[in-house]
Amino acid sequence: MIVQHSQGSYEISFHSYSIANGITVTDENVAGLYPSQVPSDSIIIPAGESSKNLSTYSFICQELLKRGATRKSQLVALGGGVIGDLVGFVAATYMRGIPFVQVPTTLLAQVDSSVGGKVGIDLPEGKNLVGSFYAPQQVIVDTSFLNTLPERQLQCGLAEVIKYGWIVDPDLLKATNRHDWERFETVSRCIQLKAQVVVEDEFETKGIRVWLNFGHTIGHAIEQLTEYKVHTHGEAISIGMVIETRIAELLGFAEVGLTDQVADSLRFHGLPTKIDPDLSVDSLIRVMRLDKKSDSGELAMSLVQKAGVCQLVKNVPQQVVREALL
Amino acid sequence: MIVQHSQGSYEISFHSYSIANGITVTDENVAGLYPSQVPSDSIIIPAGESSKNLSTYSFICQELLKRGATRKSQLVALGGGVIGDLVGFVAATYMRGIPFVQVPTTLLAQVDSSVGGKVGIDLPEGKNLVGSFYAPQQVIVDTSFLNTLPERQLQCGLAEVIKYGWIVDPDLLKATNRHDWERFETVSRCIQLKAQVVVEDEFETKGIRVWLNFGHTIGHAIEQLTEYKVHTHGEAISIGMVIETRIAELLGFAEVGLTDQVADSLRFHGLPTKIDPDLSVDSLIRVMRLDKKSDSGELAMSLVQKAGVCQLVKNVPQQVVREALL
Repeated sequence: MIVQHSQGSYEISFHSYSIANGITVTDENVAGLYPSQVPSDSIIIPAGESSKNLSTYSFICQELLKRGATRKSQLVALGGGVIGDLVGFVAATYMRGIPFVQVPTTLLAQVDSSVGGKVGIDLPEGKNLVGSFYAPQQVIVDTSFLNTLPERQLQCGLAEVIKYGWIVDPDLLKATNRHDWERFETVSRCIQLKAQVVVEDEFETKGIRVWLNFGHTIGHAIEQLTEYKVHTHGEAISIGMVIETRIAELLGFAEVGLTDQVADSLRFHGLPTKIDPDLSVDSLIRVMRLDKKSDSGELAMSLVQKAGVCQLVKNVPQQVVREALL
Repeated sequence: MIVQHSQGSYEISFHSYSIANGITVTDENVAGLYPSQVPSDSIIIPAGESSKNLSTYSFICQELLKRGATRKSQLVALGGGVIGDLVGFVAATYMRGIPFVQVPTTLLAQVDSSVGGKVGIDLPEGKNLVGSFYAPQQVIVDTSFLNTLPERQLQCGLAEVIKYGWIVDPDLLKATNRHDWERFETVSRCIQLKAQVVVEDEFETKGIRVWLNFGHTIGHAIEQLTEYKVHTHGEAISIGMVIETRIAELLGFAEVGLTDQVADSLRFHGLPTKIDPDLSVDSLIRVMRLDKKSDSGELAMSLVQKAGVCQLVKNVPQQVVREALL
């Protein structure tokens, strides 16, 4: 599968992964599970969202300098979404940009973050607050990595898969409404959908790519207020999708009952659908107003109207958000 | 003057500067000298190369978040090269890229760094080791800022002006070989030359833009080993141009006697032409091998053959560099 972008194109290939050419950057989990795919000169960082910060970014750049990496060196981002985003941002900026290959090892990274060229890191104030649009040279998708993925991480990725179902492809909702869902077909379908969206709206300026943010306005705020410690990304956006659909219902944008359908599709895979009542509504709204989609502090969200139909809704009244959160 | 680049184009306008639309980022020197051009909500950082680091980068991003800056906000980079490079890199990466306007206030920034879209910051290991290619919306050149520029900073910019003379435009050597050199004409001529080079080779892949690095391989190494405390950038590249021309002579690439001519043109404006004998040759070479132009540790330099003719020379033998440095 070829993805076109403004600077050229790259291939997404589906095959068994050995070792790609370049300096591998991965995390301790992957290095422990797949020693034969992690060369001895790899740069290995602690696993988890808390590594996606300026200090690890700086560490990787300095390790590259120690290894004598020049602007012709290639990076291999072997791991989940954190590795892909972080290493992609290093690649985008080290010596003003060097080539990199994405090898996503989690369901979440395979269906979502490895395609589309969005790279970046978190600041203490929020997720992905600095970053770039920077395309890899190649994405290698090997679904056998999913065999060692903990159940909770699989669920996490399923939340994004189900998201594709709700925003653009109702068939995916049927395909994943069973516990023995077909991995290769599902992953490749999601990547195809993501690639289509990204090709149509690379820089998120046409109101199409922003659909992918369904569940993410609330989800990011939850993740941030719980300091990424309580929920996986998928769990947070699972709750986010349910609440955002409630907002859509309250606005009269979505058909009545859609919230329950969205919640059912997620609950089937053990994903959470209710927000922790201890989370302060005021804090959630404050964080949401810093979201990249919001404009001058007005809330904007990608809302689903019915299965397969999504739209960016601007100026969502705070009162409605409060009601949906309670 | 319009500069075309891969993502579009921007205008370089020559006029008196008041206040541009957006959030101004400047340094303490500029804020002190031009209070009426620095709005009260500006972000003000300490002056000097030592601010061009990840920690100030992070500080500016966090100040932008405090001011509620969204992806539609615009930054105004008001200051010298450090401000332009640093604020440009913030603009390139804050929320994956927001618009910015360059208002260069030093001769160096006006003739060099404000045009071409190179933005970035230093790491402890070296200058400009992380960054992007990111074009401004507009560059506003107001040569009246030069009236308050200290003599040493004017000299610093003159080193780059004289560099344009040696690499592409011998007429500039005549124009600047007088103490009452014409500022507006000189600045606009240099910008025109820079814009031409940048349009022809935006991403430094065609061996043209790299000409601009004449004097910089040695110059950067000197700056770094002296921790940016001994020489201005212009002084360092002034020494760098003389030594690199000596290398060109030793290689038989340049005509005999060119080193003296280059040195004379710089000495006329009080610029240094000799390296501090206390600097370790081994350390200089070690730093140069990390230079972005070097490939697998082989030294590469842009060398002048005769006035107005420059070329990237690869695999410069270390022995020749040592001889030129002694």
